[in-house]
Amino acid sequence: MSTKVTKEEALNYHRIPTPGKVAIATTTRLETQKDLSLAYSPGVAFPCEEIAKDPALAFEYTSKRNLVAVISNGTAVLGLGNIGALASKPVMEGKAVLFKKFAAVDSFDIEVDETDINKFCDIVKAISPTFGGINLEDIKAPECFEIERRLVEELEIPVMHDDQHGTAIITSAALLNAVEMMDKKIEDLKVVVVGAGAAAIACSIMYKELGIKNLIMCDSKGVVHSGRTDLNKYKLNFVTGSCTTMEEAFTDADMVLGLSKPGTFTVEHIKLMSEEPIVFALANPTPELFPEEVKAVRPKAIVGTGRSDYANQVNNVLGFPYIFRGALDVQARTINMHMKKAAAQAIANLAKQPISDELRASFGELNYGREYIIPIPFDKRLMVEVSAAVANGAVESGVARVKEFDLEKYREKLASMI
Amino acid sequence: MSTKVTKEEALNYHRIPTPGKVAIATTTRLETQKDLSLAYSPGVAFPCEEIAKDPALAFEYTSKRNLVAVISNGTAVLGLGNIGALASKPVMEGKAVLFKKFAAVDSFDIEVDETDINKFCDIVKAISPTFGGINLEDIKAPECFEIERRLVEELEIPVMHDDQHGTAIITSAALLNAVEMMDKKIEDLKVVVVGAGAAAIACSIMYKELGIKNLIMCDSKGVVHSGRTDLNKYKLNFVTGSCTTMEEAFTDADMVLGLSKPGTFTVEHIKLMSEEPIVFALANPTPELFPEEVKAVRPKAIVGTGRSDYANQVNNVLGFPYIFRGALDVQARTINMHMKKAAAQAIANLAKQPISDELRASFGELNYGREYIIPIPFDKRLMVEVSAAVANGAVESGVARVKEFDLEKYREKLASMI
Repeated sequence: MSTKVTKEEALNYHRIPTPGKVAIATTTRLETQKDLSLAYSPGVAFPCEEIAKDPALAFEYTSKRNLVAVISNGTAVLGLGNIGALASKPVMEGKAVLFKKFAAVDSFDIEVDETDINKFCDIVKAISPTFGGINLEDIKAPECFEIERRLVEELEIPVMHDDQHGTAIITSAALLNAVEMMDKKIEDLKVVVVGAGAAAIACSIMYKELGIKNLIMCDSKGVVHSGRTDLNKYKLNFVTGSCTTMEEAFTDADMVLGLSKPGTFTVEHIKLMSEEPIVFALANPTPELFPEEVKAVRPKAIVGTGRSDYANQVNNVLGFPYIFRGALDVQARTINMHMKKAAAQAIANLAKQPISDELRASFGELNYGREYIIPIPFDKRLMVEVSAAVANGAVESGVARVKEFDLEKYREKLASMI
Repeated sequence: MSTKVTKEEALNYHRIPTPGKVAIATTTRLETQKDLSLAYSPGVAFPCEEIAKDPALAFEYTSKRNLVAVISNGTAVLGLGNIGALASKPVMEGKAVLFKKFAAVDSFDIEVDETDINKFCDIVKAISPTFGGINLEDIKAPECFEIERRLVEELEIPVMHDDQHGTAIITSAALLNAVEMMDKKIEDLKVVVVGAGAAAIACSIMYKELGIKNLIMCDSKGVVHSGRTDLNKYKLNFVTGSCTTMEEAFTDADMVLGLSKPGTFTVEHIKLMSEEPIVFALANPTPELFPEEVKAVRPKAIVGTGRSDYANQVNNVLGFPYIFRGALDVQARTINMHMKKAAAQAIANLAKQPISDELRASFGELNYGREYIIPIPFDKRLMVEVSAAVANGAVESGVARVKEFDLEKYREKLASMI
């Protein structure tokens, strides 16, 4: 199951058979003069007039209903940093491909050459009538927080910065299962978050929602503590008064979430942790520590990384395609914490189910336990479980536009789409 | 060949089998863990890095190469007027469908909720890295002129407002052939343009390029003459000193181009014209005059309308899909007058060729003459003739980015795509 890829392979993948990875497909017939009169003038005037009278009808007569924009300004792309809008396009097209392949969501990438927060928001707002949802991607912190806040507040369609919430949801799923195996209560965990960027902040917010009380954040200067004067307002929400050094932070800690880079914490830090720690080392492509390094000093550790060649891959593709699938299908106005928690719980629950024969044939035996705390990306049941949980969560929390929702029927529909 | 469509038919066409008319397709394989590593992290980092080093490589590694945005703010949609961005979406999706079906150009619609010229331009510029070309659509005059001017000047990809230039190119093709049948020289024609909006201004500019010297423009207040003080700068380019009334304008005129609405000129005006006039009555869906009305008083007239149920349908779909096809294929930096003229000439020439058996089977006999001065939209040879003419025009005029261009090979490639 090696996923080592060479530069040549990757470049060829992107230029053969045609440049890029996405194309447009038409969904209606266009063979005759009459079809032409329906698809375009004069017939097209009818849906236009209907939508002008009732904007909600755009969900009935246009592709908006199943369409998510993947929008980036290229300021924080993968581990490459600020490479700009144009150079980020392969990543955004890749994301669009994942939306389509995993959850049948039509997704189109938009690269926005603008770094100013207000101008960027104005641009996204202006083009938002086009879409049914917006997936923000690879926008640097702290700008991403304000951008997302404004767009969530000002738009009536789901907006989610996946680098933040996707990561928060998937690691929450992993965390929920890991805690169960540790025989500890989530409220009693001591958690160290190494990294204070977009994903780290969002994870920390969500962990608190899940009941974590003792959370210590560390940025490139060390522990985010109450004596520091160099903290932005997002980090200020997570200052601790309990310690000032990384060593103190790791002492007897039950979990470390690494969203930083190799070298920010070491085996020496792991040695300070409890006997059965949770270690999520998510730096990409090289984790802060490899699983074998962790296990050499903590054999009972539950370890997750971002890599597909190790157990417990924390991969956002477990979440975003289905989160938007569910949100679009009930025409949710937003994606709220209730829906995110429902997604995390659904992902966690699925890991407890026996895998399908098809998966077993390709990936070998996978049994719920320390080496399998979350599903793998190719588990097709994610479509049903996560999308249904999110859609139901939207209905429960009152943000769904659709008036009728039957969970069982919706699950059946999702199952038929696999 | 009736194209009468009912409201119910049109609405059903837009909601069945799925809402809208376009979807996203993926062009690469995504079945295995390795595919996932190529399409997304870590493999996708390679093309990103290449593009960051050399932006031109975006044409090799992303869908930009074959991708045109159809962009509108919904301020002048069909005959519906200013219905807003959202309500214009069915038209823009329809345009995207035509791009794909007729010329295999991937096209994505963007509805921009912004009417301020500068803000609109800033938005389009900001999202332009996404695309290989921009088709502006249904933007009201006079704003559309300044918007197009700025975007053409400031972007290094083809930008064309189709309502202007598509109409200019197709009517120019029709005009070139009509003049040939009249046994007059184009330089000697007296032309009346009724309408002074986006299309009328662009047609008038192009007609002057084709050699028309005596052109009288009329707006809703009558002749655009040198005594008027209420003219914008675009109309000011076309003031006449030769007359002040519509009656004078039509007297002995050889051609009238109607881009207005029913009632702006009548049979009484046609009676003032020369014996063999060209009458293009392009108001949609109801022309200024129907062909039978014109021919009742001028039996030898050559008449064109926007309707598919009459001969000589002036339909922009004869142009824009292939104009962008050709421009994209040589990575043209712009679409200049040389390319537009080449497109018009190619369309005109094609009408002189015998039609295919396939077309004859569906549409009956069509022989070059007064009732067949331009090809019909379903003539597949347009793909080869127009795209090749435009690409070649770009190379000739020095705006093509590709270094090597072999016209015959390109024509063969286009023929293989039909």
